[in-house]
Amino acid sequence: MYELGVVYRNIVRTDRATADQLGKLGSATVHEAMGRVGLLQPYMRPIYRGASVSGTAVTVLLQPGDNWMLHVAAEQIQPGDLVIAACTAASTDGFFGDLLATSFQARGARGLVIDGGVRDIATLTEMGFPVWSKAVSSKGTVKATLGSVNIPVVCAGALVHPGDVVVADDDGVVVVPAALAASVLDKATAREANEEEKRRKLASGVLGLDMYSMREPLAKAGLRYVD
Amino acid sequence: MYELGVVYRNIVRTDRATADQLGKLGSATVHEAMGRVGLLQPYMRPIYRGASVSGTAVTVLLQPGDNWMLHVAAEQIQPGDLVIAACTAASTDGFFGDLLATSFQARGARGLVIDGGVRDIATLTEMGFPVWSKAVSSKGTVKATLGSVNIPVVCAGALVHPGDVVVADDDGVVVVPAALAASVLDKATAREANEEEKRRKLASGVLGLDMYSMREPLAKAGLRYVD
Amino acid sequence: MYELGVVYRNIVRTDRATADQLGKLGSATVHEAMGRVGLLQPYMRPIYRGASVSGTAVTVLLQPGDNWMLHVAAEQIQPGDLVIAACTAASTDGFFGDLLATSFQARGARGLVIDGGVRDIATLTEMGFPVWSKAVSSKGTVKATLGSVNIPVVCAGALVHPGDVVVADDDGVVVVPAALAASVLDKATAREANEEEKRRKLASGVLGLDMYSMREPLAKAGLRYVD
Amino acid sequence: MYELGVVYRNIVRTDRATADQLGKLGSATVHEAMGRVGLLQPYMRPIYRGASVSGTAVTVLLQPGDNWMLHVAAEQIQPGDLVIAACTAASTDGFFGDLLATSFQARGARGLVIDGGVRDIATLTEMGFPVWSKAVSSKGTVKATLGSVNIPVVCAGALVHPGDVVVADDDGVVVVPAALAASVLDKATAREANEEEKRRKLASGVLGLDMYSMREPLAKAGLRYVD
Amino acid sequence: MYELGVVYRNIVRTDRATADQLGKLGSATVHEAMGRVGLLQPYMRPIYRGASVSGTAVTVLLQPGDNWMLHVAAEQIQPGDLVIAACTAASTDGFFGDLLATSFQARGARGLVIDGGVRDIATLTEMGFPVWSKAVSSKGTVKATLGSVNIPVVCAGALVHPGDVVVADDDGVVVVPAALAASVLDKATAREANEEEKRRKLASGVLGLDMYSMREPLAKAGLRYVD
Amino acid sequence: MYELGVVYRNIVRTDRATADQLGKLGSATVHEAMGRVGLLQPYMRPIYRGASVSGTAVTVLLQPGDNWMLHVAAEQIQPGDLVIAACTAASTDGFFGDLLATSFQARGARGLVIDGGVRDIATLTEMGFPVWSKAVSSKGTVKATLGSVNIPVVCAGALVHPGDVVVADDDGVVVVPAALAASVLDKATAREANEEEKRRKLASGVLGLDMYSMREPLAKAGLRYVD
Repeated sequence: MYELGVVYRNIVRTDRATADQLGKLGSATVHEAMGRVGLLQPYMRPIYRGASVSGTAVTVLLQPGDNWMLHVAAEQIQPGDLVIAACTAASTDGFFGDLLATSFQARGARGLVIDGGVRDIATLTEMGFPVWSKAVSSKGTVKATLGSVNIPVVCAGALVHPGDVVVADDDGVVVVPAALAASVLDKATAREANEEEKRRKLASGVLGLDMYSMREPLAKAGLRYVD
Repeated sequence: MYELGVVYRNIVRTDRATADQLGKLGSATVHEAMGRVGLLQPYMRPIYRGASVSGTAVTVLLQPGDNWMLHVAAEQIQPGDLVIAACTAASTDGFFGDLLATSFQARGARGLVIDGGVRDIATLTEMGFPVWSKAVSSKGTVKATLGSVNIPVVCAGALVHPGDVVVADDDGVVVVPAALAASVLDKATAREANEEEKRRKLASGVLGLDMYSMREPLAKAGLRYVD
Repeated sequence: MYELGVVYRNIVRTDRATADQLGKLGSATVHEAMGRVGLLQPYMRPIYRGASVSGTAVTVLLQPGDNWMLHVAAEQIQPGDLVIAACTAASTDGFFGDLLATSFQARGARGLVIDGGVRDIATLTEMGFPVWSKAVSSKGTVKATLGSVNIPVVCAGALVHPGDVVVADDDGVVVVPAALAASVLDKATAREANEEEKRRKLASGVLGLDMYSMREPLAKAGLRYVD
Repeated sequence: MYELGVVYRNIVRTDRATADQLGKLGSATVHEAMGRVGLLQPYMRPIYRGASVSGTAVTVLLQPGDNWMLHVAAEQIQPGDLVIAACTAASTDGFFGDLLATSFQARGARGLVIDGGVRDIATLTEMGFPVWSKAVSSKGTVKATLGSVNIPVVCAGALVHPGDVVVADDDGVVVVPAALAASVLDKATAREANEEEKRRKLASGVLGLDMYSMREPLAKAGLRYVD
Repeated sequence: MYELGVVYRNIVRTDRATADQLGKLGSATVHEAMGRVGLLQPYMRPIYRGASVSGTAVTVLLQPGDNWMLHVAAEQIQPGDLVIAACTAASTDGFFGDLLATSFQARGARGLVIDGGVRDIATLTEMGFPVWSKAVSSKGTVKATLGSVNIPVVCAGALVHPGDVVVADDDGVVVVPAALAASVLDKATAREANEEEKRRKLASGVLGLDMYSMREPLAKAGLRYVD
Repeated sequence: MYELGVVYRNIVRTDRATADQLGKLGSATVHEAMGRVGLLQPYMRPIYRGASVSGTAVTVLLQPGDNWMLHVAAEQIQPGDLVIAACTAASTDGFFGDLLATSFQARGARGLVIDGGVRDIATLTEMGFPVWSKAVSSKGTVKATLGSVNIPVVCAGALVHPGDVVVADDDGVVVVPAALAASVLDKATAREANEEEKRRKLASGVLGLDMYSMREPLAKAGLRYVD
């Protein structure tokens, strides 16, 4: 957050298998398993529907209207990474477009999460390179002021350290700190386990009121039924 | 609006045929026929394009970050209903996901209108269960505080009584009070009647200026043409 | 901006070929070639994805909640025009729907850019009539107060004169003043020229750091690498 | 909400003493006593600090950009009333200024709550006529389209019936339905009763943790202390 | 709007007397006299209450996060000017603080209107240097990229040419084009003339309904009274 | 950010003298000395003008609509602290009022920074207890769900560790990490040193263009003057 002009080259990435499995569970399930923390603000939206990815965070701190550090970040990308870019002040400029996406994709990045704007979204959609952003904007950016790469950043309200797992899909973007990834995966997997059973029951007409035994606590809380 | 902890079980629903026919006319035509009142604020957006439904309102008053009353509401749903959920304070949390949708769908609900967030939108889209909401968010909710079901609520700026007709499509969401439903249907049908004729004329190059006889009132209002 | 109740009939349009070629280059490239000015605010979004148009501006100044001048504007449309509508005060009402679109399309308009709301978006999408707007809303409008047609207007923060070129696509909307259109086209074409070459290089793994010779200026600016 | 072009002349006002006493307790205490419902959205802000009023609601439904019905409402004001104005669509126009305020004040109104804009705020401040609004704007309005007076309205998210009590101060605006006013007054008075005692204790250094006996429930909820 | 890197030194200022008299009438009256156009968006707020100024516009086009051109503009200020600063992209940074204010004040500027952020507002308030802005922010800016001075700009939605009259007070900011200043002054003065008379009448209890003869048009529009 | 249900009792506070001196320099100067990072988003506004404080951070992570942890935090306050409260999801509820303020003040807190709502602001102003918040709201909160005290939090976009220095005044709120406090103080003091000299010069009519030797770099950047 507070160190400008520095690139950390050696970051400790959460292991690939854990990151991948968290991605399969989706942002909603992972967020529950996290105890309902770690979510980026809901103004972060995907440029196209249906993308669902996870990856290890390469973090970028940008200056508003300046995408220089995204070029610097490209070199730090390893296959399976997901780039997560914060900005020192609110900006909706189009920091990222199809050329940078081509480079990121060539390096093995799975997508970009950026608390700013993006452009060339028709081409990015064709390329299958997903971006979660605050805005879409044709406005280009300069390359003039240093930010940093792979320092801790605050992106859309969430703290991200390089190497953390980022899970992003149609519902939003969740950060799982590296140290918690294994235990969150366990909890999320457990949550998921009996979802199918629940879905089947509910589809057959069983009510959540009964399936979750809510009638008693509701009555205790004072719920009245009026005919 | 003001009664907490109560569920009204017996509500008077607008008759099914009227509700269905209003749905076919669409929110824009119905809103015109209402005299341009009854529209939910335009920040309410569908999770996918192309859904067009109408139904009788089962109303829910939620506490922020708490979806307990949606489970309570499920039991009150009858085929042809549309659930409309308000919240006692602004919240973008994901109150509703695929499990509740499975239950609502099993009960015959045609969709959900919620002044809050929704999640699992990829699955909801596959299920064909339409939701109009203020936000999309992975953030789950607790089950701790009572709201109410089937009391009058204010949802996204519009007052809704249980049993009112709700019409929702890509253009937005309109509420038609039960007492006005029949007359609004008449007016909306009349409006619709000559739309096709108008469309044909306009497509052939006739100007609205002439078709609607606007030239005289415009001149009277002082419109000047400069060559 | 400041003249109410007037319609300018004879406007000087940028020549068709220039307008068309600018459209092919897209809003992002054109905006760069403009020196990064002329962009409408990024809250202006297309009602459907994939539309990419350009045209000569027929400008409209609307009163909030009143679409009378859109009917007046229809008569001034020539094939290849794009209507650009501003409003004297912020409004999200649905000023424009499928009937007006039928008329505009019959006159040869390529689309509409409106700093307000639009409705009937399902039908507009079927018709292939693209609209960029601030909002979608079922709310209709009256026909009671005069605005103007073909005066200079400020639409979503950008100044537009009648006859200027407007380029609109998934990334946003850019205005090119008539007097600058030819030189902007030259610059934009030059920019585009070596994009393909750059894309190929980046796809092969070459870094922007090297392709754009950024390493030296970054070092000079003080960038430090930490292992 | 749904009836246009009508003025109800005979409304049942909550009795003056109850309305006045609720005002003395303030919006925060009253809102608690209501069970935390009935609050207008927090974007409603006073034009000057320090005003604290309560009154019986004369309700107005305005059309956007049109203040005709405020003139109609003036005649319905009785001493001790507070005018509460909603709008059929979001508008920040300056519906209300010093002339209308002079008239309202002459009729005995205690203030205005308007889900729109207000102007002449320097003069209103001098006059001591408090207004809670969404915006301040020089923009004037027309007198062209009918709304209604003394129908139920939704103002900034809260349902208000004519005759309800409205409490407004620096913290916000709360509506107390006429039928609940007496019981809410009792509850609010009870809440207030031991506030002074609590304040004295807290000022002496006693912790809320102890005064409210929170330590046990916190421990039960799992709170851990780390040295 | 579209010319970067240029400073126009010789601008034609509206004559001082006209600008001063418009200021005395206030933004609301002037805006009415303009026919309700020319108002900056209502998010523009003064840093302190009670300032009421007018002046001839020295215009500035800034780059986001860069206040270089404000220093350039200082040299172009003449006594009686009011600086009006637009930005090529939305920014809330603190472009302006007490040092620049000292310089502007020394040059004779009456205030600043800026579609961005301002800082040192405690000192600016002590100095009596009024600023209307979109935001207050401690964030400083760089001096790296050229904008322009004394070109036409769009500031908070309004078009301003250098030399136009700008009227700013607690209600907002209005622009009067130089060419219209004299006639707007006439109309605004006429409006003001009988305000005092009206105020006296309304204060005595006369209703606007009668004073403005509204009863008949209201009845004609269909207004019904219900007892 | 990610640990719920825990209170760290022993935190390392930046030394008092450093925190106090940073406060005297003000948020704008400190933010510059930080290299323009560490600023909370500009929507954080003081409840009254003129407060200017600094202190060592006691951090709180709240659940939306729940102020339980503020009571827990009170016990951890030492004289000279400033409480900084984040929330796991956006909320404008009134988490904090005059009773808690009485307790905080008794413990020696200098103020509160909260990414949420506050109430009783008239009383807080009288007490001289400053609060910077996102909103003012009468809405009270429950005491039901655990957050944490003295863990790292993200408040209004800025990362804060317990013991960091927080500087808050009319311009905004800046965080200075404990490890940087001494060096930031040095830089900020140096910046301040010649401000008075600069102010004197500018007041005498010297231009920033000359005082900062900007004419040459401006010419080099291509600035043209047109007579």
